Amino acid sequence: MSISTTYSVSGMTCGHCVSSVTEEIGKLPGVREVNVDLVAGGQSPVQVVSDDELDEAQVREAVTEAGYELAAAS
Amino acid sequence: MSISTTYSVSGMTCGHCVSSVTEEIGKLPGVREVNVDLVAGGQSPVQVVSDDELDEAQVREAVTEAGYELAAAS
Repeated sequence: MSISTTYSVSGMTCGHCVSSVTEEIGKLPGVREVNVDLVAGGQSPVQVVSDDELDEAQVREAVTEAGYELAAAS
Repeated sequence: MSISTTYSVSGMTCGHCVSSVTEEIGKLPGVREVNVDLVAGGQSPVQVVSDDELDEAQVREAVTEAGYELAAAS
């Protein structure tokens, strides 16, 4: 089984930002895939595929660690 | 003796971009210091302090290597 959750992350402006966020979220246990659709300077959808439901607090922490802000999960 | 030259680099949007440019220019022989004043999405002045006059072609190559564009030297 795998779950796909799409978060919204603000503050990313370039491919380096995407790499940072992808790397940090990718470190969370159970995460299989992270797909960022960069909206430079806006809110970028970040799809996370995981084995189980993720703890949003952990995702938020990973995004903050990368230097950006988690806006919402949908 | 040291020489200060200020270049103009376009395309940088964030601190990661600044790091990339600083790193690539910093690898050039004789470069002592690189100071980027980020103008996100615009042309950012990049001051380079070096032992001798730099070859602009080499600076251009370093900036291109980092993924950005050298606009001009002043």
